[in-house]
Amino acid sequence: MTAPDPKELKDPQFTRETAVAARAAGKQLAALQASQRSALLLDLAAALQQPDARQKVLAANHEDLASAAQEEAAGRLAGPLVRRLVLDDKKIAGLVDGLRQLAAMEDTDAVGRILVRRELDTALVLERVVCPLGLLGVVFESRPDALVQIASLALRSGNAVLLKGGREAAATNRALTALIQEVLASRGLPRQTASLLEARADVETLLGLDGVVDLVIARGSSAFISHVRRSTQIPVMGHDAGICHLYLHASASPSMAAALAVDGKCSYPAACNATETLLWEPGAAAALDAAVAALRAAGVELHADEATRRRHPDLLAATPADWDTEWGALSLSIRCVGGLDEALLHIERHGTGHTEAIVAEDANAAAAFLAAVDAACVFHNASTRFSDGYRFGLGAEVGISTDKLHARGPVGVEGLYTYRWLLRGQGQVSTDYEPGRSGGRTFRHRNLL
Amino acid sequence: MTAPDPKELKDPQFTRETAVAARAAGKQLAALQASQRSALLLDLAAALQQPDARQKVLAANHEDLASAAQEEAAGRLAGPLVRRLVLDDKKIAGLVDGLRQLAAMEDTDAVGRILVRRELDTALVLERVVCPLGLLGVVFESRPDALVQIASLALRSGNAVLLKGGREAAATNRALTALIQEVLASRGLPRQTASLLEARADVETLLGLDGVVDLVIARGSSAFISHVRRSTQIPVMGHDAGICHLYLHASASPSMAAALAVDGKCSYPAACNATETLLWEPGAAAALDAAVAALRAAGVELHADEATRRRHPDLLAATPADWDTEWGALSLSIRCVGGLDEALLHIERHGTGHTEAIVAEDANAAAAFLAAVDAACVFHNASTRFSDGYRFGLGAEVGISTDKLHARGPVGVEGLYTYRWLLRGQGQVSTDYEPGRSGGRTFRHRNLL
Repeated sequence: MTAPDPKELKDPQFTRETAVAARAAGKQLAALQASQRSALLLDLAAALQQPDARQKVLAANHEDLASAAQEEAAGRLAGPLVRRLVLDDKKIAGLVDGLRQLAAMEDTDAVGRILVRRELDTALVLERVVCPLGLLGVVFESRPDALVQIASLALRSGNAVLLKGGREAAATNRALTALIQEVLASRGLPRQTASLLEARADVETLLGLDGVVDLVIARGSSAFISHVRRSTQIPVMGHDAGICHLYLHASASPSMAAALAVDGKCSYPAACNATETLLWEPGAAAALDAAVAALRAAGVELHADEATRRRHPDLLAATPADWDTEWGALSLSIRCVGGLDEALLHIERHGTGHTEAIVAEDANAAAAFLAAVDAACVFHNASTRFSDGYRFGLGAEVGISTDKLHARGPVGVEGLYTYRWLLRGQGQVSTDYEPGRSGGRTFRHRNLL
Repeated sequence: MTAPDPKELKDPQFTRETAVAARAAGKQLAALQASQRSALLLDLAAALQQPDARQKVLAANHEDLASAAQEEAAGRLAGPLVRRLVLDDKKIAGLVDGLRQLAAMEDTDAVGRILVRRELDTALVLERVVCPLGLLGVVFESRPDALVQIASLALRSGNAVLLKGGREAAATNRALTALIQEVLASRGLPRQTASLLEARADVETLLGLDGVVDLVIARGSSAFISHVRRSTQIPVMGHDAGICHLYLHASASPSMAAALAVDGKCSYPAACNATETLLWEPGAAAALDAAVAALRAAGVELHADEATRRRHPDLLAATPADWDTEWGALSLSIRCVGGLDEALLHIERHGTGHTEAIVAEDANAAAAFLAAVDAACVFHNASTRFSDGYRFGLGAEVGISTDKLHARGPVGVEGLYTYRWLLRGQGQVSTDYEPGRSGGRTFRHRNLL
């Protein structure tokens, strides 16, 4: 019997206290000037470039990689997970670039921005003012560069953050958090503004901290995110399944259809914005043929319905479950639909509200598709893979949300803000404004902004 | 044994089909011009003023009131609930006014508004466009005028709506829904755009319709709203408990303190924006005395801590539970705090994030309070009762949200919108933009709007 890891002995009360301290620390962060928050990001970029600090991070990552290699050899850890663990000079250079870009994008710091200023009556002025959400709880998988990206988004937006990474990256995450905390301390901020949770039980404790944690950001598998959503009363922002369709209209250009199908499926098959199903209508047979040829050349396994197989008999036969499958690999479903209406119906039934695209030269068909599809992202003649915060110009990305409330689609730093209503008066009371009251007052409701 | 009500026999499948039909009908509503949606509201206002139609509604309301009187006599229905059932000429006139105001407020119809237009690259243009949420599920208590208000907000914002009222108002709700459906039909829209659910089991069925219903709006008691939140995976917008504080700073004007305390507590004690707790610091003793005298004169029961009772020995002794009590009646808690910091701590521990107010002549104290309190509404020298969509100038009100995500505080029609990202290209693929790719393209990210 081995001794229990001391980290496993931390009780939930300790985690709660860490969270409460982080929340309080966040208020100091939120009270800074925007330029002071951007200075934190620049400091962190500089720290990552400093040879000593960088060496510590790389050494910690080697430690994690060595353990992971043992785990992989013992069959306890999957190869792709191990490879995502790697933090090297190139990835660090990417993080440094990202930090500098985020610091330079002034409009990403919205703390204190006044959205509404309205005179309700003389000397009774209402404002709606942007503020940080407060405390973010982030649960993420092995990729340790995610820690720096998320922490930088949190610091930029004035939010404190609890970070819970995977145990495979424990040493790297500890080294990176130490670096962030040194930057915080050197600018007179509490180290707890960004706190690392390490015990295995901390995820469940974190999910029970409603009233302390304002938003849970979950990054991992669909199954993990569903588990998180079911286990907490705290709002959750998570990448969910993306079953994205590419619909070939009769007017589709065959070469474009082939290029978009290959890019959508093959450029990163594990991504949630990858294309999973190709829909085509009888008039688009030439476009289908071009897409099928290109996909096969790229090594994609094709699962087709009967109508498609009449044209391409050597494709695999699709099963009904295929229409609801996020392949996440070099596989694709293909279905023939009667036309636009049937394509829309298929997308409504089987889509996940992520990204849907039409290939068409006919402007009316494109406009009808763009108007009708209820999804976060709807594209005409562009790859579904463009659904991405960086590509959309949002700077860094918190995630891609298939929820409709708060933030939809690729979510940048703006998803980490809320607002407050501030009202400044001189002793006004509500009964003075009651309708029909004699001698009463009426609201002016004049926008000053 | 009485025969089962036929309405109770409707199976969940029927309710699901109604919801699916409503959702489809909503798409037609969303595709209209804004002026056509406002015409629906004006038609409904005219219909409510038309003697025949109005007579039908009033007759239905008499029917409900007669049943309710019997229930009340048998002790099965509370008096206040019965009185809220009443729909008379005055209330109808109020509804007609509200409909006309909402129709006139052009900026409440945001469908199709373009929030972002950004050139990602040549001929690759991204837009972020406002759209309705889709289908709203509304569960509300006895007040039948709420049905018209909510339906009008839904129609204005292009959302279909499922309405589930209390059984006490069954006849009135049916008459009002029939009126709304006639207006819809006369403008060529499906009647199902606004559908009434009547069976008792429909609430649970509705809460299980995730993927069909986009937002549940719950209006009723705190306990009911908590039940709704726990019972569904659909996002819920609900009025929750409001434990609002009025803090008397040392610089508070005694007469203002008295007026704000009385208005905050007495103008509508059952409202969620009513003041529940008075905090005062030692320097504000004169303001406390004035407030206590005015509250007693208004018949308010006062529950005070020991420090307060040393000054006012005849007040009731507060218990610790009082700090977390939403009285909803002419009762108020009073507590002495050491100063601003202790007031903030009390509010953080016992507030519900609804509305918090300071009474102070000192501008620095007011600014510190407004900066520090994490609540939907934070007021200086104004009654907590101003927290209200109508008073804030939002037109009609969906509710007052104590959530931080999506919409916070009084929520007007804008809480019923989401957005979609539309991208129009000419066949661009993501791999062309991979960083470091030779001959690759780079994003321009130029805002066109």
